[in-house]
Amino acid sequence: MSTIQKIKGTRDFFDLDAEKFRYIEQVCSNEIKKFGFKEMITPIFENTAVFNRLGEQSDIVTKEMYSFFDRSNRSITLRPEGTAPVVRAFIENKIYANSIDVNKYFYFGPIFRYERPQAGRYRQFHQFGVEAFGNSTAILDVDIILSAWTIIEKLNLQNIVLKINTIGDLSSRDKYQKALVEYFNKYTDKLCNDCKVRLEKNPMRILDCKVDVNQDFMKNAPKIKDYLSQESIDYFNEVLRGLDTFGIKYEIDENLVRGLDYYTDTVFEFIIKSDDELNNLAICAGGKYGNLVKDLNGPDIPGVGYAFGVERLIELMDRQNVWPSLKINPEIFIMALDEQSKIEAQRLALYLRKLGLKVEFDYKNISMKPQFRLSEKLNVEYILIIGENERKENLITVKDVANKTQVTIPISDLLNYLPYELINAKEGFCYDENAQ
Amino acid sequence: MSTIQKIKGTRDFFDLDAEKFRYIEQVCSNEIKKFGFKEMITPIFENTAVFNRLGEQSDIVTKEMYSFFDRSNRSITLRPEGTAPVVRAFIENKIYANSIDVNKYFYFGPIFRYERPQAGRYRQFHQFGVEAFGNSTAILDVDIILSAWTIIEKLNLQNIVLKINTIGDLSSRDKYQKALVEYFNKYTDKLCNDCKVRLEKNPMRILDCKVDVNQDFMKNAPKIKDYLSQESIDYFNEVLRGLDTFGIKYEIDENLVRGLDYYTDTVFEFIIKSDDELNNLAICAGGKYGNLVKDLNGPDIPGVGYAFGVERLIELMDRQNVWPSLKINPEIFIMALDEQSKIEAQRLALYLRKLGLKVEFDYKNISMKPQFRLSEKLNVEYILIIGENERKENLITVKDVANKTQVTIPISDLLNYLPYELINAKEGFCYDENAQ
Repeated sequence: MSTIQKIKGTRDFFDLDAEKFRYIEQVCSNEIKKFGFKEMITPIFENTAVFNRLGEQSDIVTKEMYSFFDRSNRSITLRPEGTAPVVRAFIENKIYANSIDVNKYFYFGPIFRYERPQAGRYRQFHQFGVEAFGNSTAILDVDIILSAWTIIEKLNLQNIVLKINTIGDLSSRDKYQKALVEYFNKYTDKLCNDCKVRLEKNPMRILDCKVDVNQDFMKNAPKIKDYLSQESIDYFNEVLRGLDTFGIKYEIDENLVRGLDYYTDTVFEFIIKSDDELNNLAICAGGKYGNLVKDLNGPDIPGVGYAFGVERLIELMDRQNVWPSLKINPEIFIMALDEQSKIEAQRLALYLRKLGLKVEFDYKNISMKPQFRLSEKLNVEYILIIGENERKENLITVKDVANKTQVTIPISDLLNYLPYELINAKEGFCYDENAQ
Repeated sequence: MSTIQKIKGTRDFFDLDAEKFRYIEQVCSNEIKKFGFKEMITPIFENTAVFNRLGEQSDIVTKEMYSFFDRSNRSITLRPEGTAPVVRAFIENKIYANSIDVNKYFYFGPIFRYERPQAGRYRQFHQFGVEAFGNSTAILDVDIILSAWTIIEKLNLQNIVLKINTIGDLSSRDKYQKALVEYFNKYTDKLCNDCKVRLEKNPMRILDCKVDVNQDFMKNAPKIKDYLSQESIDYFNEVLRGLDTFGIKYEIDENLVRGLDYYTDTVFEFIIKSDDELNNLAICAGGKYGNLVKDLNGPDIPGVGYAFGVERLIELMDRQNVWPSLKINPEIFIMALDEQSKIEAQRLALYLRKLGLKVEFDYKNISMKPQFRLSEKLNVEYILIIGENERKENLITVKDVANKTQVTIPISDLLNYLPYELINAKEGFCYDENAQ
């Protein structure tokens, strides 16, 4: 019989990959909490209605959702993006009623889109995202962008550029969309099939088209800046001034409109600059959404947020080689040279584990050769050896692998022979910047 | 329009609930890594075939799976348990070929079962689980149980009892099953409908039946111990001796057989003892599975593992009131008393956040009253106040909320006025036992 395989477009994370994944989660979660965000963990699936409101013409909703009927014939969808579920939870749990002006939540979890499989694209991938609900102020937009920038710095990413644009308030957008329709109607024969549909349903998304992007007529299309209300212009300028204050460099990209329909005013992306195929890809994208909470039957409260793609972060950090040292191996291996010593090895392992050390021993072998081989395979820092001699005289042999030294000492002295940092090992993933 | 609600049987975790969830994840992950386990993150869904092998008569497989066809007509199932996906990944990624005798992995994530909704039961719930693949030794079984016990201790759970049993190797089970069929055939009229089916397909699971459990004939049913091979008896006794060595108390429960078909020899559960409805419920269940890797078309390698139910842990820790202090609020609130001070507040916030502090400020208001109200709502420890005076003279006012003291100091002295522990705040969730 053949091996059962994972579903196409999904991925197993294990060993170092799992540590990388959790490192990113930990950095994002630690940093964003400092900005006053709390975590929101929503279910993996939602009523399909939660996502249908995202924009009926978006590819995500029309082509890429994992929707199915459960045993009670409800239409359920594995979440194809992270914002709508958090909005749903914000409304359903009446969080808006807590009299805090701006409620700020983050999430980290899987997202599902049935896309054509291609390099770097997964059908289950992961996002870290944030949503801030409440008073719409430029200073909040700036704080949101600062938080993303802080995470980018903390992850040690290089050559990341902020692109920013405003797509205006609803009245600005209405005027702009009319101008776009008028303009593109002159080029219908040159538009790709998708854009022909977009021209009817959501003309702004033509500007996002990856097929038509290099056509000449795209360059001369009307720009949103010529259709903005004074209020939207002032708001955008205030955001830009805020970024200037904090020395955050940005490029205004007039074609940046974002793929989902719910954005208003500020939209932004953090883009990779590189000489490989990652060039110009976004690692983070977001913006203000004036109407999504209301569209999902909630109160009229605006939101602003962004999301990072975890898989792309991992790929970029691999290429830029900016990972910190991530340890997956045990620090100590305990070698037992006879059956009776095996139980002593297990006892000592438990003791050292309770002190916070990562300890391994061989569950079966008592001859030295396979145990040494295993300790090498595990790449441990210290090997502790217990044999009949050691056991009878309460001794232990300590082998320092890096220094190739070996001493036999009273077992009561053991902790003095292991380095202080090891004994005071930080718990699991604990990136304490002050200790670095 | 009505509010869109989460799917029945699912749950949002936010604010303190999300912190509780992550606290459990962090403790489980930290502790198990010390036992030499590495993380395995498998996809949320798998080919349905991965789960069909778990036992065709189990309720999970026949009634409770969320299975659906994707857009390419593959039968996909949201994982209804955690072991089979890890086994699938162990086989598919050929981890067994790495020449490490025992490969040890843990997972933490959502599990999906379409069960009748009832108190404490969710259709999406979460498990922390471990799987060790390799040499079958009693000492490994003991180490697995020790690791679960260490987690129980670390979570500070009270009144937990280990129940253990052996269900023997395959030949023991064959003999036993024949005896069970013979015995229960005498009581077919008294068996519940499910058990009538079990009698045909998997008679051992009759012993698990929650309907028939109190019937008289159940007490006199044949016991596995009378059908065990000498090898299985010796193996079980060695496991019990190991537990004795480490002072782990246990009760042998001859009716403990576990709901899934893949177990052999050692099976165990950690049970709650209480005077409420949680009494006798398991927080952790596991055992050895001799044949699952082979059944999923992998090599003939035995496994042993267990899983904790996260929602039940949270409920138990709530009832036993054993949570450590979990902070979700910002430590510092910065109050700005005019528009120009707002930008200073944001600048100071960024500075303090980069030092590791959780800092919040009001994005909009400049009058004191709403800002004080917000700082109270957020339950912060310190309020920093910047107004025109402070700004002009490079001062800042520091209000210690608990002590109700307030001083105005040069802003360059600020860090001296915030407590050392705060400045050296540990990152996010970092439970460093040595620092406690």
